Amino acid sequence: MRLADLTTPALVVDRAAFDRNVAEMAAVRPGPALRPHVKAFKSTALAARLAAAGHRTFCCATVREVEGMAAAGLGDDLLLANEVLDATRLGRVAGSGARITVAVDSEATVVAAARGGVREVLVDVDVGMPRCGCDPADAGRLADLARAHGLTVRGVMGYEGHLMRAPADVKAARVEEAMVLLLAAHEATGGDVVSAGGTGTYDVNRWATEIQAGSYCLMDTEYVPHVPAFEHALYLWGTAIAVRARWAVADVGLKAQAMNHGDPTVVGGSCIFVSDEHVTFAPAAGRPVAVGAGVTLLPAHVDPTVTMHERMWVVESVDAGPAAGLDGDAEIVDEWPVDLRGW
Amino acid sequence: MRLADLTTPALVVDRAAFDRNVAEMAAVRPGPALRPHVKAFKSTALAARLAAAGHRTFCCATVREVEGMAAAGLGDDLLLANEVLDATRLGRVAGSGARITVAVDSEATVVAAARGGVREVLVDVDVGMPRCGCDPADAGRLADLARAHGLTVRGVMGYEGHLMRAPADVKAARVEEAMVLLLAAHEATGGDVVSAGGTGTYDVNRWATEIQAGSYCLMDTEYVPHVPAFEHALYLWGTAIAVRARWAVADVGLKAQAMNHGDPTVVGGSCIFVSDEHVTFAPAAGRPVAVGAGVTLLPAHVDPTVTMHERMWVVESVDAGPAAGLDGDAEIVDEWPVDLRGW
Repeated sequence: MRLADLTTPALVVDRAAFDRNVAEMAAVRPGPALRPHVKAFKSTALAARLAAAGHRTFCCATVREVEGMAAAGLGDDLLLANEVLDATRLGRVAGSGARITVAVDSEATVVAAARGGVREVLVDVDVGMPRCGCDPADAGRLADLARAHGLTVRGVMGYEGHLMRAPADVKAARVEEAMVLLLAAHEATGGDVVSAGGTGTYDVNRWATEIQAGSYCLMDTEYVPHVPAFEHALYLWGTAIAVRARWAVADVGLKAQAMNHGDPTVVGGSCIFVSDEHVTFAPAAGRPVAVGAGVTLLPAHVDPTVTMHERMWVVESVDAGPAAGLDGDAEIVDEWPVDLRGW
Repeated sequence: MRLADLTTPALVVDRAAFDRNVAEMAAVRPGPALRPHVKAFKSTALAARLAAAGHRTFCCATVREVEGMAAAGLGDDLLLANEVLDATRLGRVAGSGARITVAVDSEATVVAAARGGVREVLVDVDVGMPRCGCDPADAGRLADLARAHGLTVRGVMGYEGHLMRAPADVKAARVEEAMVLLLAAHEATGGDVVSAGGTGTYDVNRWATEIQAGSYCLMDTEYVPHVPAFEHALYLWGTAIAVRARWAVADVGLKAQAMNHGDPTVVGGSCIFVSDEHVTFAPAAGRPVAVGAGVTLLPAHVDPTVTMHERMWVVESVDAGPAAGLDGDAEIVDEWPVDLRGW
């Protein structure tokens, strides 16, 4: 089957670019120095390729991701890097033999972990981004509380998400400031794990024992300028369904791509607006579009875009690169179900 | 089961508000004067309630919606109000006994309809919004072309989407301008149908024989101020998973709600930012939030939010209204699968 034979809109992965991204990361963060974040791709088929590249510890954002990863035989060491108030489903997965660790940042989440039957926790520490994570000064108390509830404290996690796009000349210094907070908390909690970071800080965070990165596999237009070591491996493939004198319309709308990072990049044109089912765009001079032609978009935010699709279609390589877009004659060589959607 | 027992995030429908919205629309646009747009709710269970309220003609935006509606026994008269280049799946549904009409706005889409085995078309006319739809002057030629290909031309459609939020004092006049274009095209095409409009023009578009509205059933924060005859019937229900001195965090992120109309409304607080899995918000003065508490959000855009969920949970009534939010003790009285997702 070729790209031109697909029902559109469709998600398409450039496997060669994906493999290069995986190799770059594995060179800097080999094996368990990376804990790939499943939330970015929500696919056990993709995760299995990361496991084959040496990463067998994974990070999840939802209970369903944990359940699906364990069911797929990828449950050696799964961290739910998020807080939950009902850990009974997690406890069930742990009971089935997978190794499950959950983040805790409050008494209620400690109690929930213990009550749900989870046996291991990381204390989630606020290192500067206003989201989950306890006050660093509270980490030791929570670790003691967890141990009092019979839980093993493996260490700490803290996501410096506010620094993923920090300017290159100050990024390392600012990450160090955040990690000083995390290491102080770690002193108070004990345990072997200091889990932090993401695609934007994979190469500058020298303090974490493991990096939580997922976007690097596929990338998007918002992230590539900040972390040019990784390249676009994810595309949206659509069909031009209407063409007028000053615009064309493709069938890739709001239900096929996330808009929180702004408009997508339309290859060979410029985006005018995106509505529920459509993208209206201006074809570039000298690149007219015919009704029925394939249209390539580069998504603006990989994580919430992937979760809108049932599967990713894989091509061997997009030789011409993102500036030229996909070729409808390209053979589809694999299909990766997005099987970890929902909650 | 109560709301507090749900896995969060979850979509929740206020059935009483939904029923009032349906009744208001049915009073103004009874029976086939409304062609409810399935794209707004993607649920055959919800559609069945509209059919019970007298609307048995439906509008779809995707082939999968058409297939699902027909399979659910709601195929009396299904319009795919969108262009397709491969109509073979539509033809298959038509062959199974459902009545299928597809929009066409170019030679290629006419040929595709005929080749795919669809028997009836509407000529889609550009009435002022830069998206699909032919030049009004081209409608007659396309109708002739369709008839030459053995297709029945049922009439025209034209979506005045650019006027849904027009100021109330000029809306009717501007809709008339758009409909003058559509009626001129209709003169040239023949047929009985003039299909147009949406939730924002349901009461002012006097020229269409049928209105294509879907958002009115559930509504969102962007639409309610423009069309106050309809009320919020859709909520997002989350759990407060972390609480700090100046903010709280609920588990309702970018994968649970569309952001193209901006931030959601957090009941009892103000949204600070939304990330993949979380909304960080500032609780209002005097409304502290505890870890584990239920958190209610009003979505900013109904259509692309609904499609992110596997089901809607239904409660009898949100007596306190959207300003007070959902009550975790409310009983769930029904479950409407969002069974028409994907393409």
